[in-house]
Amino acid sequence: MSEAVAATRRSRITPEREAELYEAVLGLLREVGYDTLTMDAVAARTRSSKATLYRQWGGKAQLVVQALRHGKRGHVEDIDTGSLRGDLHALVALEDDCTMERNSALMRGVAMAMHHNDDLRQAFREQLIAHEVGGFRQVVQRAVDRGEIRPDCPAIDFMLHMMVGGFATRTLLDDQPPTRAFLTSYIDAVVLPALGVSAI
Amino acid sequence: MSEAVAATRRSRITPEREAELYEAVLGLLREVGYDTLTMDAVAARTRSSKATLYRQWGGKAQLVVQALRHGKRGHVEDIDTGSLRGDLHALVALEDDCTMERNSALMRGVAMAMHHNDDLRQAFREQLIAHEVGGFRQVVQRAVDRGEIRPDCPAIDFMLHMMVGGFATRTLLDDQPPTRAFLTSYIDAVVLPALGVSAI
Repeated sequence: MSEAVAATRRSRITPEREAELYEAVLGLLREVGYDTLTMDAVAARTRSSKATLYRQWGGKAQLVVQALRHGKRGHVEDIDTGSLRGDLHALVALEDDCTMERNSALMRGVAMAMHHNDDLRQAFREQLIAHEVGGFRQVVQRAVDRGEIRPDCPAIDFMLHMMVGGFATRTLLDDQPPTRAFLTSYIDAVVLPALGVSAI
Repeated sequence: MSEAVAATRRSRITPEREAELYEAVLGLLREVGYDTLTMDAVAARTRSSKATLYRQWGGKAQLVVQALRHGKRGHVEDIDTGSLRGDLHALVALEDDCTMERNSALMRGVAMAMHHNDDLRQAFREQLIAHEVGGFRQVVQRAVDRGEIRPDCPAIDFMLHMMVGGFATRTLLDDQPPTRAFLTSYIDAVVLPALGVSAI
Protein backbone atom coordinates (compact mmCIF):
# COMPACT_ATOMS: atom_id res chain seq x y z
CA MET A 1 0.00 0.00 0.00
CA SER A 2 1.58 3.31 -1.05
CA GLU A 3 1.79 6.29 1.29
CA ALA A 4 -0.64 8.20 -0.95
CA VAL A 5 -3.24 5.44 -0.87
CA ALA A 6 -2.83 5.08 2.89
CA ALA A 7 -3.30 8.83 3.35
CA THR A 8 -6.46 8.82 1.24
CA ARG A 9 -7.89 5.88 3.11
CA ARG A 10 -7.06 7.29 6.50
CA SER A 11 -8.34 10.74 5.63
CA ARG A 12 -11.85 9.41 6.21
CA ILE A 13 -11.25 9.46 9.98
CA THR A 14 -10.07 12.37 12.10
CA PRO A 15 -6.46 12.52 13.39
CA GLU A 16 -7.80 12.34 16.97
CA ARG A 17 -9.76 9.19 16.21
CA GLU A 18 -6.74 7.73 14.43
CA ALA A 19 -4.50 8.43 17.45
CA GLU A 20 -7.09 6.85 19.76
CA LEU A 21 -7.17 3.76 17.57
CA TYR A 22 -3.38 3.41 17.51
CA GLU A 23 -3.23 3.74 21.30
CA ALA A 24 -5.79 0.96 21.61
CA VAL A 25 -3.77 -1.26 19.26
CA LEU A 26 -0.56 -0.65 21.23
CA GLY A 27 -2.43 -1.41 24.46
CA LEU A 28 -3.72 -4.71 23.08
CA LEU A 29 -0.29 -5.54 21.68
CA ARG A 30 1.24 -5.11 25.16
CA GLU A 31 -1.49 -7.21 26.74
CA VAL A 32 -1.73 -10.17 24.40
CA GLY A 33 1.14 -9.93 21.87
CA TYR A 34 0.95 -9.85 18.09
CA ASP A 35 -0.05 -13.45 17.42
CA THR A 36 -3.02 -13.39 19.79
CA LEU A 37 -4.19 -9.91 18.79
CA THR A 38 -7.25 -10.04 16.52
CA MET A 39 -9.00 -7.43 14.41
CA ASP A 40 -12.16 -8.42 16.34
CA ALA A 41 -10.50 -7.33 19.58
CA VAL A 42 -9.36 -4.03 18.03
CA ALA A 43 -12.86 -3.42 16.67
CA ALA A 44 -14.45 -4.19 20.05
CA ARG A 45 -12.09 -2.03 22.06
CA THR A 46 -12.30 0.93 19.70
CA ARG A 47 -16.03 0.52 18.93
CA SER A 48 -15.36 0.44 15.23
CA SER A 49 -16.42 -2.05 12.58
CA LYS A 50 -13.95 -4.59 11.28
CA ALA A 51 -14.87 -3.46 7.76
CA THR A 52 -13.69 0.06 8.61
CA LEU A 53 -10.39 -1.25 10.00
CA TYR A 54 -9.71 -3.37 6.93
CA ARG A 55 -10.72 -0.54 4.58
CA GLN A 56 -8.46 1.96 6.33
CA TRP A 57 -5.38 -0.19 6.95
CA GLY A 58 -5.67 -3.26 4.78
CA GLY A 59 -4.92 -5.76 7.56
CA LYS A 60 -3.59 -6.50 11.02
CA ALA A 61 0.09 -6.25 10.05
CA GLN A 62 -0.29 -2.79 8.49
CA LEU A 63 -2.42 -1.53 11.36
CA VAL A 64 0.09 -2.72 13.97
CA VAL A 65 3.06 -1.20 12.14
CA GLN A 66 1.27 2.14 11.73
CA ALA A 67 0.45 2.05 15.45
CA LEU A 68 4.12 1.41 16.28
CA ARG A 69 5.14 4.29 14.05
CA HIS A 70 2.58 6.53 15.72
CA GLY A 71 3.90 5.45 19.15
CA LYS A 72 7.33 6.92 18.50
CA ARG A 73 7.92 10.32 20.08
CA GLY A 74 9.11 12.61 17.34
CA HIS A 75 11.08 11.61 14.30
CA VAL A 76 14.80 11.68 13.71
CA GLU A 77 14.51 13.92 10.61
CA ASP A 78 12.79 16.66 12.65
CA ILE A 79 15.81 16.94 14.97
CA ASP A 80 18.27 19.60 13.87
CA THR A 81 20.54 20.79 16.69
CA GLY A 82 23.42 21.93 14.49
CA SER A 83 25.74 18.97 15.16
CA LEU A 84 25.53 15.23 14.57
CA ARG A 85 26.35 14.49 18.18
CA GLY A 86 23.61 16.88 19.29
CA ASP A 87 21.11 15.27 16.91
CA LEU A 88 21.82 11.69 18.04
CA HIS A 89 21.80 12.62 21.73
CA ALA A 90 18.51 14.49 21.21
CA LEU A 91 17.09 11.41 19.49
CA VAL A 92 17.69 9.14 22.50
CA ALA A 93 16.42 11.89 24.82
CA LEU A 94 12.99 11.94 23.12
CA GLU A 95 11.77 9.20 25.43
CA ASP A 96 12.34 8.84 29.16
CA ASP A 97 13.84 5.53 30.35
CA CYS A 98 10.48 4.14 31.42
CA THR A 99 8.90 4.75 28.00
CA MET A 100 12.02 3.42 26.29
CA GLU A 101 11.84 0.19 28.30
CA ARG A 102 8.15 -0.22 27.44
CA ASN A 103 8.80 0.39 23.76
CA SER A 104 11.83 -1.89 23.80
CA ALA A 105 9.69 -4.74 25.19
CA LEU A 106 7.02 -4.00 22.57
CA MET A 107 9.58 -4.01 19.75
CA ARG A 108 11.10 -7.28 20.97
CA GLY A 109 7.65 -8.87 20.88
CA VAL A 110 7.00 -7.60 17.37
CA ALA A 111 10.49 -8.63 16.20
CA MET A 112 9.75 -12.13 17.51
CA ALA A 113 6.42 -12.27 15.67
CA MET A 114 8.10 -11.11 12.45
CA HIS A 115 10.00 -14.40 12.22
CA HIS A 116 6.85 -16.34 11.40
CA ASN A 117 4.61 -13.60 9.92
CA ASP A 118 5.73 -12.63 6.44
CA ASP A 119 3.11 -9.88 6.09
CA LEU A 120 4.23 -8.29 9.37
CA ARG A 121 7.86 -8.42 8.28
CA GLN A 122 6.97 -6.81 4.96
CA ALA A 123 4.88 -4.06 6.54
CA PHE A 124 7.62 -3.43 9.12
CA ARG A 125 10.22 -3.03 6.40
CA GLU A 126 8.11 -0.97 4.01
CA GLN A 127 6.37 1.32 6.50
CA LEU A 128 8.77 1.62 9.41
CA ILE A 129 12.34 0.78 8.46
CA ALA A 130 12.14 2.59 5.11
CA HIS A 131 10.95 5.67 6.98
CA GLU A 132 13.77 5.43 9.54
CA VAL A 133 16.36 4.95 6.80
CA GLY A 134 15.07 8.12 5.12
CA GLY A 135 15.14 10.04 8.40
CA PHE A 136 18.71 9.04 9.23
CA ARG A 137 19.74 9.84 5.68
CA GLN A 138 18.62 13.45 6.25
CA VAL A 139 20.46 13.72 9.56
CA VAL A 140 23.64 12.29 7.99
CA GLN A 141 23.31 14.55 4.91
CA ARG A 142 23.19 17.62 7.13
CA ALA A 143 26.34 16.41 8.91
CA VAL A 144 28.02 15.87 5.55
CA ASP A 145 26.96 19.37 4.45
CA ARG A 146 28.45 20.84 7.64
CA GLY A 147 31.70 19.00 6.91
CA GLU A 148 31.37 16.73 9.95
CA ILE A 149 31.27 13.46 7.99
CA ARG A 150 33.16 12.67 4.79
CA PRO A 151 30.60 11.87 2.08
CA ASP A 152 32.41 8.60 1.26
CA CYS A 153 32.57 7.39 4.88
CA PRO A 154 31.70 3.65 4.71
CA ALA A 155 29.92 3.71 8.10
CA ILE A 156 27.13 5.86 6.60
CA ASP A 157 25.64 2.73 5.04
CA PHE A 158 25.45 1.11 8.48
CA MET A 159 23.86 4.02 10.34
CA LEU A 160 20.65 2.16 11.19
CA HIS A 161 22.50 -1.11 11.94
CA MET A 162 24.65 0.75 14.47
CA MET A 163 21.74 2.54 16.15
CA VAL A 164 19.37 -0.45 16.26
CA GLY A 165 22.28 -2.73 17.20
CA GLY A 166 23.01 -0.78 20.38
CA PHE A 167 19.35 -0.73 21.31
CA ALA A 168 18.76 -4.43 20.62
CA THR A 169 21.94 -5.95 22.08
CA ARG A 170 21.66 -4.14 25.41
CA THR A 171 18.87 -6.46 26.57
CA LEU A 172 20.28 -9.57 24.94
CA LEU A 173 23.85 -9.21 26.24
CA ASP A 174 23.44 -7.32 29.50
CA ASP A 175 19.88 -8.30 30.45
CA GLN A 176 19.19 -4.62 31.07
CA PRO A 177 16.83 -2.29 29.23
CA PRO A 178 18.40 0.28 26.91
CA THR A 179 18.53 3.53 28.88
CA ARG A 180 19.32 7.04 27.74
CA ALA A 181 22.67 6.86 29.62
CA PHE A 182 23.64 3.60 27.92
CA LEU A 183 22.66 4.78 24.42
CA THR A 184 24.44 8.12 24.88
CA SER A 185 27.68 6.31 25.87
CA TYR A 186 27.25 3.92 22.97
CA ILE A 187 26.74 6.78 20.49
CA ASP A 188 29.88 8.53 21.77
CA ALA A 189 31.99 5.35 21.88
CA VAL A 190 30.83 3.59 18.70
CA VAL A 191 28.58 5.53 16.30
CA LEU A 192 30.41 8.86 16.17
CA PRO A 193 33.97 7.42 15.99
CA ALA A 194 32.86 4.98 13.26
CA LEU A 195 31.62 8.00 11.29
CA GLY A 196 34.91 9.79 11.93
CA VAL A 197 33.23 12.38 14.18
CA SER A 198 34.86 13.35 17.46
CA ALA A 199 32.70 12.53 20.49
CA ILE A 200 34.08 15.43 22.52
CA MET B 1 26.98 -24.23 37.73
CA SER B 2 30.72 -23.54 37.67
CA GLU B 3 32.94 -24.68 34.82
CA ALA B 4 34.75 -27.02 37.21
CA VAL B 5 31.54 -28.68 38.37
CA ALA B 6 30.32 -28.94 34.78
CA ALA B 7 33.60 -30.54 33.74
CA THR B 8 33.43 -33.07 36.57
CA ARG B 9 29.85 -33.94 35.73
CA ARG B 10 30.50 -34.25 32.04
CA SER B 11 33.72 -36.21 32.54
CA ARG B 12 31.54 -39.29 33.12
CA ILE B 13 30.78 -39.46 29.39
CA THR B 14 33.26 -39.52 26.52
CA PRO B 15 33.85 -36.41 24.39
CA GLU B 16 32.51 -38.31 21.35
CA ARG B 17 29.31 -39.17 23.17
CA GLU B 18 29.01 -35.60 24.39
CA ALA B 19 29.40 -34.24 20.84
CA GLU B 20 26.78 -36.72 19.59
CA LEU B 21 24.38 -35.55 22.29
CA TYR B 22 24.89 -31.88 21.47
CA GLU B 23 24.30 -32.56 17.78
CA ALA B 24 21.05 -34.30 18.65
CA VAL B 25 19.95 -31.35 20.82
CA LEU B 26 20.73 -28.85 18.03
CA GLY B 27 18.81 -31.02 15.57
CA LEU B 28 15.75 -31.12 17.84
CA LEU B 29 16.05 -27.40 18.47
CA ARG B 30 15.92 -26.73 14.72
CA GLU B 31 12.96 -29.06 14.29
CA VAL B 32 10.69 -28.06 17.15
CA GLY B 33 12.15 -24.93 18.80
CA TYR B 34 13.12 -24.39 22.42
CA ASP B 35 9.67 -24.27 23.99
CA THR B 36 8.52 -27.54 22.46
CA LEU B 37 11.81 -29.37 23.04
CA THR B 38 11.60 -31.81 25.96
CA MET B 39 14.20 -33.73 27.91
CA ASP B 40 12.12 -36.82 27.05
CA ALA B 41 12.70 -36.18 23.35
CA VAL B 42 16.44 -35.66 23.90
CA ALA B 43 16.60 -38.86 25.95
CA ALA B 44 14.70 -40.81 23.27
CA ARG B 45 16.75 -39.54 20.36
CA THR B 46 20.09 -40.08 22.10
CA ARG B 47 19.10 -43.34 23.81
CA SER B 48 20.07 -41.97 27.19
CA SER B 49 18.14 -41.80 30.43
CA LYS B 50 16.60 -38.54 31.56
CA ALA B 51 18.34 -39.04 34.91
CA THR B 52 21.70 -39.01 33.13
CA LEU B 53 20.83 -35.82 31.25
CA TYR B 54 19.74 -34.03 34.39
CA ARG B 55 22.78 -35.27 36.32
CA GLN B 56 25.20 -34.14 33.62
CA TRP B 57 23.66 -30.79 32.70
CA GLY B 58 21.22 -29.80 35.41
CA GLY B 59 18.35 -29.00 33.06
CA LYS B 60 17.08 -28.20 29.60
CA ALA B 61 18.33 -24.60 29.56
CA GLN B 62 21.89 -25.58 30.48
CA LEU B 63 21.93 -28.49 28.03
CA VAL B 64 20.69 -26.30 25.16
CA VAL B 65 23.22 -23.53 25.87
CA GLN B 66 26.10 -26.03 26.06
CA ALA B 67 24.91 -27.49 22.75
CA LEU B 68 24.90 -24.01 21.19
CA ARG B 69 28.39 -23.39 22.50
CA HIS B 70 29.54 -26.72 21.11
CA GLY B 71 27.95 -25.85 17.74
CA LYS B 72 30.21 -22.87 17.20
CA ARG B 73 33.15 -23.51 14.91
CA GLY B 74 36.26 -22.48 16.78
CA HIS B 75 36.51 -19.77 19.37
CA VAL B 76 37.52 -16.16 19.03
CA GLU B 77 40.31 -16.42 21.60
CA ASP B 78 42.05 -19.14 19.58
CA ILE B 79 42.40 -16.82 16.57
CA ASP B 80 45.72 -15.00 16.49
CA THR B 81 46.64 -13.72 13.03
CA GLY B 82 48.88 -10.87 14.20
CA SER B 83 46.41 -8.02 13.56
CA LEU B 84 42.98 -7.11 14.90
CA ARG B 85 41.56 -6.84 11.39
CA GLY B 86 42.96 -10.26 10.55
CA ASP B 87 41.50 -11.75 13.75
CA LEU B 88 37.98 -10.36 13.18
CA HIS B 89 37.95 -11.33 9.51
CA ALA B 90 39.14 -14.82 10.45
CA LEU B 91 36.34 -15.02 13.03
CA VAL B 92 33.59 -14.44 10.45
CA ALA B 93 35.34 -16.80 8.04
CA LEU B 94 35.08 -19.72 10.48
CA GLU B 95 31.65 -20.60 9.12
CA ASP B 96 30.50 -20.68 5.51
CA ASP B 97 27.41 -18.62 4.65
CA CYS B 98 25.10 -21.61 4.72
CA THR B 99 26.20 -22.63 8.23
CA MET B 100 26.02 -19.00 9.34
CA GLU B 101 22.44 -18.72 8.10
CA ARG B 102 21.47 -21.93 9.89
CA ASN B 103 23.10 -20.76 13.12
CA SER B 104 21.57 -17.30 12.77
CA ALA B 105 18.08 -18.85 12.52
CA LEU B 106 18.84 -21.05 15.52
CA MET B 107 20.08 -18.09 17.58
CA ARG B 108 17.00 -16.02 16.68
CA GLY B 109 14.79 -18.85 17.90
CA VAL B 110 16.72 -19.14 21.16
CA ALA B 111 16.77 -15.33 21.62
CA MET B 112 12.98 -15.36 21.23
CA ALA B 113 12.59 -18.12 23.81
CA MET B 114 14.85 -16.21 26.22
CA HIS B 115 12.19 -13.51 26.62
CA HIS B 116 9.90 -15.82 28.55
CA ASN B 117 12.37 -18.37 29.97
CA ASP B 118 14.38 -16.90 32.82
CA ASP B 119 16.50 -20.04 33.27
CA LEU B 120 17.45 -20.03 29.58
CA ARG B 121 18.36 -16.34 29.75
CA GLN B 122 20.52 -16.98 32.82
CA ALA B 123 22.28 -19.99 31.29
CA PHE B 124 22.83 -18.06 28.05
CA ARG B 125 24.44 -15.18 29.91
CA GLU B 126 26.51 -17.27 32.30
CA GLN B 127 27.70 -19.98 29.94
CA LEU B 128 27.78 -18.37 26.51
CA ILE B 129 27.98 -14.57 26.70
CA ALA B 130 30.48 -14.60 29.58
CA HIS B 131 32.67 -16.91 27.52
CA GLU B 132 32.41 -14.67 24.43
CA VAL B 133 33.20 -11.58 26.50
CA GLY B 134 36.33 -13.32 27.80
CA GLY B 135 37.34 -14.38 24.29
CA PHE B 136 36.95 -10.91 22.82
CA ARG B 137 38.84 -9.47 25.80
CA GLN B 138 41.85 -11.59 24.84
CA VAL B 139 41.68 -10.55 21.19
CA VAL B 140 41.41 -6.88 22.17
CA GLN B 141 44.21 -7.18 24.74
CA ARG B 142 46.55 -8.55 22.07
CA ALA B 143 45.63 -5.59 19.83
CA VAL B 144 46.32 -3.20 22.73
CA ASP B 145 49.67 -4.92 23.37
CA ARG B 146 50.59 -4.54 19.68
CA GLY B 147 49.75 -0.84 19.92
CA GLU B 148 46.78 -1.11 17.54
CA ILE B 149 44.15 0.03 20.06
CA ARG B 150 44.61 2.63 22.78
CA PRO B 151 43.98 0.95 26.16
CA ASP B 152 41.48 3.68 27.12
CA CYS B 153 39.46 3.46 23.88
CA PRO B 154 35.78 3.66 24.96
CA ALA B 155 34.62 1.31 22.17
CA ILE B 156 36.43 -1.60 23.87
CA ASP B 157 33.52 -1.88 26.32
CA PHE B 158 31.10 -2.29 23.40
CA MET B 159 33.07 -4.91 21.48
CA LEU B 160 30.41 -7.62 21.81
CA HIS B 161 27.54 -5.15 21.25
CA MET B 162 29.12 -4.10 17.97
CA MET B 163 29.78 -7.64 16.75
CA VAL B 164 26.42 -9.10 17.80
CA GLY B 165 24.64 -5.93 16.63
CA GLY B 166 25.88 -6.35 13.05
CA PHE B 167 24.90 -10.01 13.07
CA ALA B 168 21.44 -9.46 14.57
CA THR B 169 20.33 -6.34 12.70
CA ARG B 170 21.17 -7.72 9.25
CA THR B 171 18.09 -9.96 9.28
CA LEU B 172 15.86 -7.48 11.08
CA LEU B 173 16.64 -4.47 8.90
CA ASP B 174 17.54 -5.97 5.54
CA ASP B 175 15.62 -9.25 5.68
CA GLN B 176 18.79 -11.01 4.59
CA PRO B 177 20.94 -13.49 6.46
CA PRO B 178 24.28 -12.25 7.78
CA THR B 179 26.88 -13.37 5.26
CA ARG B 180 30.66 -13.33 5.47
CA ALA B 181 30.74 -10.48 2.90
CA PHE B 182 28.29 -8.37 4.90
CA LEU B 183 30.05 -8.94 8.23
CA THR B 184 33.47 -8.24 6.73
CA SER B 185 32.25 -4.89 5.33
CA TYR B 186 30.58 -4.09 8.66
CA ILE B 187 33.79 -4.86 10.59
CA ASP B 188 35.81 -2.61 8.25
CA ALA B 189 33.24 0.22 8.26
CA VAL B 190 32.10 0.18 11.89
CA VAL B 191 34.03 -2.00 14.35
CA LEU B 192 37.61 -1.13 13.39
CA PRO B 193 37.05 2.65 12.96
CA ALA B 194 35.18 2.77 16.30
CA LEU B 195 38.26 1.17 17.90
CA GLY B 196 40.51 3.67 16.13
CA VAL B 197 42.03 0.99 13.90
CA SER B 198 42.48 1.65 10.20
CA ALA B 199 40.49 -0.76 8.01
CA ILE B 200 43.02 -0.61 5.16
